Amino acid sequence: MSIELWYWPQIPGRGEFVRLFCEAFQLDYTDMAREQSADALVEHMHSLEGIRPFAPPYIVDDEVVIGQTALILQYLSDKEGLGSGEMEIDLQLFQLQLDIADFVEEIHSVHHPVANELYYADQMEAAFEKAAHFRGQRIPKYLIHFDNALAANGGPFMLGQQPTHVDTSLFQIMEGLDYMFPNYMKEMQGTWVNLEGLQGAVPEIEPLADYLASERRMEFNEDGIFRHYEELDEQ
Amino acid sequence: MSIELWYWPQIPGRGEFVRLFCEAFQLDYTDMAREQSADALVEHMHSLEGIRPFAPPYIVDDEVVIGQTALILQYLSDKEGLGSGEMEIDLQLFQLQLDIADFVEEIHSVHHPVANELYYADQMEAAFEKAAHFRGQRIPKYLIHFDNALAANGGPFMLGQQPTHVDTSLFQIMEGLDYMFPNYMKEMQGTWVNLEGLQGAVPEIEPLADYLASERRMEFNEDGIFRHYEELDEQ
Repeated sequence: MSIELWYWPQIPGRGEFVRLFCEAFQLDYTDMAREQSADALVEHMHSLEGIRPFAPPYIVDDEVVIGQTALILQYLSDKEGLGSGEMEIDLQLFQLQLDIADFVEEIHSVHHPVANELYYADQMEAAFEKAAHFRGQRIPKYLIHFDNALAANGGPFMLGQQPTHVDTSLFQIMEGLDYMFPNYMKEMQGTWVNLEGLQGAVPEIEPLADYLASERRMEFNEDGIFRHYEELDEQ
Repeated sequence: MSIELWYWPQIPGRGEFVRLFCEAFQLDYTDMAREQSADALVEHMHSLEGIRPFAPPYIVDDEVVIGQTALILQYLSDKEGLGSGEMEIDLQLFQLQLDIADFVEEIHSVHHPVANELYYADQMEAAFEKAAHFRGQRIPKYLIHFDNALAANGGPFMLGQQPTHVDTSLFQIMEGLDYMFPNYMKEMQGTWVNLEGLQGAVPEIEPLADYLASERRMEFNEDGIFRHYEELDEQ
């Protein structure tokens, strides 16, 4: 049975991390709200009972109904036997995926430092100040962390030659940062060489290359997590 | 062998979620940096190689070295057989623990909306604005989510009569919010009755009662996640 993925149809957002993994490893999934509508997603989410997802993305896989991007990816990876085969290593991959989730949350808060429910235009001052700290401190702290982890097995992927869910997610992080902070990322080129290697290697995973060239691959936009606002990328 | 818990010794912080679980279920753990020092933690963290934790808390349990509070709790719960015994339900508990982790991150960002590395005094204006939105929108959104989930099995705990890692964590959330926003939480009393029931039931878990009455239980303070600043609790 096809795995149901439920996520907002208008943005790549957190759903794209699930899509990239499913596409790279050819999992049978249906992108429900893109087949139907955003209204269908809201309706479906409200129809769930008991312990429910806090927010999209979430998946429905027979009896399993879970939210949280990192958990979805680890669950699918376990189920399909796409991990390392060693518990200690799989836990570390899960930890990295949770580090990525934290980074994604921080990336979103750059343009929404005061409140999710306010427009960017209503919190630009704090966002401008936050972006400077984010470029100066947080991006390097996270990317050094991931770059060092990649070095552990010699690259290009986290486990060496075998790609996992962590690699498709780190690819999306690097693509998103290039979109959001083009000046900054250009200036920093050559700093995180293992991540740059990964960014080149992931799109060569064959089924993923097809996806990235297709219309299914959504472009980044200013309703999503990675938004390009020139003033937040000033040096 | 005793599980090593590594976390900052001066604050309850994220480490307290691990402590509460270990104490409630009488797991053999050693609170390394409280036995040694903050310097020992920094030194130990830097001595780790390969795929490393991004930040404390992390645990060392023989070959397993992992960070991320939610992952630590789920790992220990699995290892000790303290879950539901059903994969679908354990995944939902994990999801709830990840929802809690997101909430904790948002709670911290109330007093640090612009940058972690700035003092509160240097971002008070944005914090004041953020706190109003946080009380008005985010606390209700999260607490309704957890309250509804608790209702699913009739309480007082998430699985009914059996306490799990999610319950000790939600207890800490409620205690922390009472400390951080006493006026707001008093005004809202009676709104989230299932969470209030849990907050009363968790300290009656016998080994936990001993811990909470001991000197090992750290008080909330203004270096931690839950900080009481009067101006952020104004109605």
